[in-house]
Amino acid sequence: MGLIAGRGLYPRIVARLARARGWRVVAVGFHSETDPALADEVDRFESIHLGELQKLVDVLRDGGVRDAVMAGKVLKTHLYDDPAALHPDARAIGVLAALRDRKDDSILGAVVDEIASEGIAFPPQTELLPELFGTAGLLGETAPDAAAWADVRFGWPAAKTIGGLDIGQSVVVKERAVIAVEAIEGTDAAIRRAGELAGPGCCLVKVAKPSQDPRFDLPTIGVETIKTLREARASTFAFEAGRTVVLEPAELAAAADADGIAVVGIGPDGPGEGPP
Amino acid sequence: MGLIAGRGLYPRIVARLARARGWRVVAVGFHSETDPALADEVDRFESIHLGELQKLVDVLRDGGVRDAVMAGKVLKTHLYDDPAALHPDARAIGVLAALRDRKDDSILGAVVDEIASEGIAFPPQTELLPELFGTAGLLGETAPDAAAWADVRFGWPAAKTIGGLDIGQSVVVKERAVIAVEAIEGTDAAIRRAGELAGPGCCLVKVAKPSQDPRFDLPTIGVETIKTLREARASTFAFEAGRTVVLEPAELAAAADADGIAVVGIGPDGPGEGPP
Repeated sequence: MGLIAGRGLYPRIVARLARARGWRVVAVGFHSETDPALADEVDRFESIHLGELQKLVDVLRDGGVRDAVMAGKVLKTHLYDDPAALHPDARAIGVLAALRDRKDDSILGAVVDEIASEGIAFPPQTELLPELFGTAGLLGETAPDAAAWADVRFGWPAAKTIGGLDIGQSVVVKERAVIAVEAIEGTDAAIRRAGELAGPGCCLVKVAKPSQDPRFDLPTIGVETIKTLREARASTFAFEAGRTVVLEPAELAAAADADGIAVVGIGPDGPGEGPP
Repeated sequence: MGLIAGRGLYPRIVARLARARGWRVVAVGFHSETDPALADEVDRFESIHLGELQKLVDVLRDGGVRDAVMAGKVLKTHLYDDPAALHPDARAIGVLAALRDRKDDSILGAVVDEIASEGIAFPPQTELLPELFGTAGLLGETAPDAAAWADVRFGWPAAKTIGGLDIGQSVVVKERAVIAVEAIEGTDAAIRRAGELAGPGCCLVKVAKPSQDPRFDLPTIGVETIKTLREARASTFAFEAGRTVVLEPAELAAAADADGIAVVGIGPDGPGEGPP
């Protein structure tokens, strides 16, 4: 399996799960983006500069890769604030020149299509590695109380609507009022704002965008999210099971239980009546 | 005309417009909320404590009031953090005791119904004083450029959807991406956040909630909004004409023109194709 690896823990978790299935993992990372320790968890690791598209294709093809996965963000700001970090080769320049716009999805889509033209597929990660994705139900021992369930049921359709508008993935709810909506500031900033505005007991509801391309880096949750929820004295975290990457679920559940935070996966049809 | 007056400039503007029509204005304000200078702009002014509902009814009835208006916020936090500011009389206690919940609209609705039971009507302010509300088109001399119009057209349906969910009234857009969504933090905080996240050139789109009760204190815009937009180096402000109170439109237009900010009223059907 090919692994195009950006920042954070996500590429490492993908590598571990793939090797646990007995797959050979050929990884390409980026200087100043990818943790070089990833090399210890894969069968082959090459580090390239952002923009070396031909080299990326060569490594994957030479490694005999048929299916590949993108995991971990690469900061798009390099396109603007740090041109020196970019080493676009002729092939990358050709792809960039043909772009209609520079939205994340446009850039990633063009790169994926170019690599796919070499016979390397990008199957949906939900099909390739379903164990990456959380399942419905409680993640730890802590369960939402009746008031928190009411907030989850209240927030779910709002979060889905906002995701459908491609605005953001999260709403933070307290006492059946939306306290904060995430747009580009990110989930952590929205959690902190809600904590400051509404005090303890907030409920984070995070969903996948209906238009999320399952070939790309997907929304992830992990122990870091729990730290922010603890700081904001939130009570509950509901995420969309099956479409959200849950990094290190055991560690996440332990951290949440230690803080008395309920973490619950909700299926794509929403919480319905929800317990209790 | 009866005027139940809370904070800020809104009650004073209502009083001026009503007297310009030749109406007699009987105003009731609240200690520590209402600017006592309102007394100079009305025919009769009484200041009462929050909670003195019978006294409020008596002043309006004794003043021969048939139609009344609520204008200017009264901070609901007094219900929680400053019980000493409240002097609920028997009639107010009866109204509060019968409430299903303590949402703003529930409290105001119960108070209005109680006063209406004395034969005092609360007509929609849009019908009683249509000149309070902005009209469609440019407010000053500064017009949005093509990119800003594209952002207004992009943001309008998003703002309407979010208003329909009763989350908030505003979105801030730049380059056809929603940078910030207003929930309970208020419009000014959302503008500032967008300016920090996306830099200059943002576009504020503010709409009325579809469910806004036209008898109550209505969303207002004024020179203060322009100050915040200037601090965030925003370029454009689109508001919903006919359903937003525009306080001191001439001063607002002058301030916006001085800062090169385009202010445009949009009809309830949205910007359509919009100029140019």
